[in-house]
Amino acid sequence: MHQPKRFKKISGIEIPIHEYAEEIRSGSRLHLSKAITLIESMNRDRQEVGQELLQLLLPVTGRSIRIGITGVPGAGKSTFIETFGMMLCEKGHRVAVLAVDPSSSISGGSILGDKTRMQDLSRHPNAFIRPSPSAGTLGGVHRKTRETMLLCEAAGYDVILIETVGVGQSETIVRGMVDYFLLLVLTGAGDELQSMKKGIMELTDAIVVNKADGDNEKLAKKTVREYKQILHFLQPATPKWTTSAFAVSSLKNIGLDHVWKDISEFQNQMKESGYFDERRKLQTKDWFRAMITDRLIDEFFSQKRKNAYDLESQLVQGELTVSQAVDKLFKS
Amino acid sequence: MHQPKRFKKISGIEIPIHEYAEEIRSGSRLHLSKAITLIESMNRDRQEVGQELLQLLLPVTGRSIRIGITGVPGAGKSTFIETFGMMLCEKGHRVAVLAVDPSSSISGGSILGDKTRMQDLSRHPNAFIRPSPSAGTLGGVHRKTRETMLLCEAAGYDVILIETVGVGQSETIVRGMVDYFLLLVLTGAGDELQSMKKGIMELTDAIVVNKADGDNEKLAKKTVREYKQILHFLQPATPKWTTSAFAVSSLKNIGLDHVWKDISEFQNQMKESGYFDERRKLQTKDWFRAMITDRLIDEFFSQKRKNAYDLESQLVQGELTVSQAVDKLFKS
Ligand SMILES: Nc1nc2c(ncn2[C@@H]2O[C@H](COP(=O)(O)OP(=O)(O)OP(=O)(O)O)[C@@H](O)[C@H]2O)c(=O)[nH]1
Ligand SMILES: Nc1nc2c(ncn2[C@@H]2O[C@H](COP(=O)(O)OP(=O)(O)OP(=O)(O)O)[C@@H](O)[C@H]2O)c(=O)[nH]1
Ligand SMILES: [Mg+2]
Ligand SMILES: [Mg+2]
Repeated sequence: MHQPKRFKKISGIEIPIHEYAEEIRSGSRLHLSKAITLIESMNRDRQEVGQELLQLLLPVTGRSIRIGITGVPGAGKSTFIETFGMMLCEKGHRVAVLAVDPSSSISGGSILGDKTRMQDLSRHPNAFIRPSPSAGTLGGVHRKTRETMLLCEAAGYDVILIETVGVGQSETIVRGMVDYFLLLVLTGAGDELQSMKKGIMELTDAIVVNKADGDNEKLAKKTVREYKQILHFLQPATPKWTTSAFAVSSLKNIGLDHVWKDISEFQNQMKESGYFDERRKLQTKDWFRAMITDRLIDEFFSQKRKNAYDLESQLVQGELTVSQAVDKLFKS
Repeated sequence: MHQPKRFKKISGIEIPIHEYAEEIRSGSRLHLSKAITLIESMNRDRQEVGQELLQLLLPVTGRSIRIGITGVPGAGKSTFIETFGMMLCEKGHRVAVLAVDPSSSISGGSILGDKTRMQDLSRHPNAFIRPSPSAGTLGGVHRKTRETMLLCEAAGYDVILIETVGVGQSETIVRGMVDYFLLLVLTGAGDELQSMKKGIMELTDAIVVNKADGDNEKLAKKTVREYKQILHFLQPATPKWTTSAFAVSSLKNIGLDHVWKDISEFQNQMKESGYFDERRKLQTKDWFRAMITDRLIDEFFSQKRKNAYDLESQLVQGELTVSQAVDKLFKS
């Protein structure tokens, strides 16, 4: 790696960029946080410094298991992450929690990665929780989450948990940046499944029925059996991996060790077959392609939005063929 | 509609374009065939005449039920279309059969819309069978199928059947141009489903278990029950429509009337709720958007393919961040 010897002004402190990278590598939370802020910045100069920093650190990224967690609001994602994350920290792992928040670009606020439901975890020395970026376009927010994950890996976090509410395209986007994708559900498979978005079960490597405690325990176990039956008919999300279903209680810490065992087996098996690295390479290429497409569309429509809108209404009124509309738009 | 009074040279015959359009409207197969050839042409001038012709005819398009039919090779798609098409022709319908052939861009040949398995239908005066275009890019082939469908509607065909083998993205593309999408399967739901591509069941408005004759009849009926059970858990492809499953024999003409009844009910219900027209408008807009994206990507990569390829290998080797690679590509 080339190491630019220039000095860069990073958040007011003037130090050589490779020294800054070294601080992150050695585990400084302060430097990690500031580097993420640079990556998330709207300012082009700051962004560029962030990218250079990340580039310097790329050789030490990738050494983690990346886990995506999704589920409807109230499924217990935050509670699961609190308990699961604590269990892993106690085992000596270093755990980073990130979020892809489909609503943040609309509300301008962050609803996920909330530290309030992760009180113990947020105080644990082995954990790092980063709320989702509070502004920016959807594409931008997601790009930043992926790059934040890489920074966390460089800082030595070996388990990355990425939370998202299953809304819109956010599950697909998270699926595209993780190794293992986990769907948290509640009891009542039939109803639950019907209320679920299309195709989500076919993205997941495990289905975790949460709140399997007290009166709900029996029903949760029945739900697990129902899910297993349906899973039997579906294509697995990861080739040669059997998607399984588990009953857990995030509140009472029951069954979470089984989930971790499943993840560990997944990791071993996929590394052995070579699919682990292959998928990551594919993900990087897909990400590159998706970002190119996003940018092409953004740049095109920032110039042609009005034209496209006019042509669209002519189309719907049957005045033009689609081919003609496309030709006109490109000629305009 | 404006009617350009100029004369256009169409396939050697010089007649006013609106007279040509009139020939198509009045049902001339010869003129319809030649118009499709113009639409499919690689020559820009001919393409443009085809588009003008289609534009003139747009006001009389749309008066059909558009049915997509998919299934693995050997499921019996061609046989189904032969028998089903004949039944509809006998009822007085006019039936056009088109194909989206995912292999044609590779092989340069056409494997679908084969008249050999549709011997009776291909001779029936009420039927029009058009093999899939024999060359061109995948995107181009699909665009042409959609526009061919519109020409057929203008020529008075009130049932459009679009066949595709379930390979790659072709089902999704066909789903995006039809009202009703039908999946033809064989007995043995479990195995069949496991061999199926992701998410396809969630695209379909009906599952038709074919070859329910002779020794296979009982098993076919069992398969129908199994599919119904699974469908219960999935989101329907069309909001407020319950996807159903049927056992038929395309060879012995058993049960095809039930499928037609289902399609008719579907059409009535969707027209009443307004979703029929709404979906078509959405499809037109999606098509517009997809064609814009295709063209943007085509034009971009036709200039930058080599750069993109180089950057991609740098990415995979971890020398650059994805953001940096995208920036470099756009600056190059
Ligand atoms: N009984 C029981 N309650 C739980 C369990 N896990 C979570 N809950 C409760 O369920 C409610 C929702 O939990 P959260 O962790 O906030 O759910 P979430 O999926 O993060 O929800 P959003 O952040 O709104 O998307 C809270 O009141 C939790 O205490 C569990 O295992 N058992
Ligand atoms: N017994 C029985 N055989 C059928 C039936 N329908 C089709 N077949 C046979 O199944 C074989 C495949 O039928 P096709 O109609 O060519 O199948 P296809 O789906 O069009 O296949 P491709 O064009 O290769 O994708 C032929 O030998 C048909 O005669 C049926 O209802 N019953
Ligand atoms: Mg939460
Ligand atoms: Mg066939």
